Amino acid sequence: MLQTRSTSITQHIDQLRGQINEALSSFVQFDQDCPERLREAIRYSLLGSGKRLRPALVLMAAEACGGDATAAMPAACAVEMVHAYSLVHDDLPAMDDDDLRRGRPTCHKQFDEATAILAGDALLALAFQTLAENVRPPDVAAECCATLARAAGASALVGGQADDLAGTQGATAGLPSSADGTSDLLDSLQHIHARKTGAMFIASLRLGGLAAGANAEQLEALEAFGRALGLAFQITDDLLDVRGDEAALGKRVQKDSGRGKLTFPGLLGIEESRRRAEQLIDEAIQAVNIFGPAASNLEALARFVLERNR
Amino acid sequence: MLQTRSTSITQHIDQLRGQINEALSSFVQFDQDCPERLREAIRYSLLGSGKRLRPALVLMAAEACGGDATAAMPAACAVEMVHAYSLVHDDLPAMDDDDLRRGRPTCHKQFDEATAILAGDALLALAFQTLAENVRPPDVAAECCATLARAAGASALVGGQADDLAGTQGATAGLPSSADGTSDLLDSLQHIHARKTGAMFIASLRLGGLAAGANAEQLEALEAFGRALGLAFQITDDLLDVRGDEAALGKRVQKDSGRGKLTFPGLLGIEESRRRAEQLIDEAIQAVNIFGPAASNLEALARFVLERNR
Repeated sequence: MLQTRSTSITQHIDQLRGQINEALSSFVQFDQDCPERLREAIRYSLLGSGKRLRPALVLMAAEACGGDATAAMPAACAVEMVHAYSLVHDDLPAMDDDDLRRGRPTCHKQFDEATAILAGDALLALAFQTLAENVRPPDVAAECCATLARAAGASALVGGQADDLAGTQGATAGLPSSADGTSDLLDSLQHIHARKTGAMFIASLRLGGLAAGANAEQLEALEAFGRALGLAFQITDDLLDVRGDEAALGKRVQKDSGRGKLTFPGLLGIEESRRRAEQLIDEAIQAVNIFGPAASNLEALARFVLERNR
Repeated sequence: MLQTRSTSITQHIDQLRGQINEALSSFVQFDQDCPERLREAIRYSLLGSGKRLRPALVLMAAEACGGDATAAMPAACAVEMVHAYSLVHDDLPAMDDDDLRRGRPTCHKQFDEATAILAGDALLALAFQTLAENVRPPDVAAECCATLARAAGASALVGGQADDLAGTQGATAGLPSSADGTSDLLDSLQHIHARKTGAMFIASLRLGGLAAGANAEQLEALEAFGRALGLAFQITDDLLDVRGDEAALGKRVQKDSGRGKLTFPGLLGIEESRRRAEQLIDEAIQAVNIFGPAASNLEALARFVLERNR
């Protein structure tokens, strides 16, 4: 799986994406007890044109630890299922109320609200089924379930989304703009993203490590990488939101800042945001030094996250 | 845990309910990364005045197999978390649109719709975290996660709810009322409930067996019990809906039939519905004969499900 020098990281990710999409599709066949419309909504939400960044991280983490992609693939698919579920629910009218996602109608626009709620629920359950039935040995499967459940739970993904929604209301209600106020808002923004984005990045790296039989030191290094990359990813996402091109992203640009949501460029300015993202990517790469060349794809991916903003 | 002859099954369930509620409460403390309002909504939805029938089934199944309640308690709590999540999401405006549940405002009425969606999501993730972190040995934990995920998934709980919602529209649109039509509707109704209620009953019994180290024959007997009891429970629930007392149930009676939903008494009449429920309870009790006196609480509970309609 190690890329040759002539293969760019984007080509490598494209290749992984093909393998991931094939595996994802195999996990959402369903028997006839699954209603047709629900099955369609699940497949629509999971098998679209996603970047597959999180599952790629799972596979690359396994690679860094000397594991093989086949053993890590169920874990890779499970994190993508949780990611897909979270997008379907976040897009709902009662939440972010988005009509477009990755250039296509969101699940509740394409189907209906009840079906979108249920498709999200089914994807979340399916993630744990996929881990529990396919990761081996079973004690690793149990550890993977615990890791993913914590990352998806009330103190992580769900809690971050709850505070993010509350934050929208807070920001539009006119929060303090003094230096101290900015610092508080920055803490609050980082705390939201540590749970909403960071926790699933960290879990992805940890799951890949677990699937490859990583030791405690290796798991810690992978988690440090995930923590720094997750925050850098969110900062560059905010930068793309400010500067990006609507067609390239497939969603309304500036929708977050236009809606009064807290963003890193909004709080720190574009240059300082970019500087912090660079610093975080350096930290991430430093963290996986212990793996030597086996971590070269993780390192290249980290640089890619930074550079997609240029 | 075996009841004495002088202790009625309702008293025994009351006693179990106390232990279950205490254990449930211990699993929803959360650290400070969980937003306060989300934590409140989760606790409100999980720690209300529920019957705790499913967790009691887990504990009694473990008892039938010679296991102890402490080892089975995390699994008991996990099924109640999934049950609570499903009620919160089913009550949402886009789904059944209910204002009252167990005599109190539903989660989205007490809090708000976004919080209710997120509280349900968090409860679903927490169920798997509870199993994966607490069931021992780890290979049993993984098997429990797989069992619960299948029961909660697109071909079971979620699929049944999707068809139930679609069925409401079908029934109000005026489906056939001929003998053949009734038979088709009965099949459809049973198929819905096998997934919406039955799957979680069966999973509850199986989880209790797994936690107690049951063998394949024992698991099969427990699942047969759960299958028959689940359907009998739904039939008696429909009967209570027709005949019940609003105050005793804490929800609007006849809401299902009034809304044009398919029900057993609506299709078969009250007497035939009752006869079928009695037959199913006999089947359930027959299935757990192999456990001898260790299944006496399961048997008493099955009779209780039938008799709550008298």
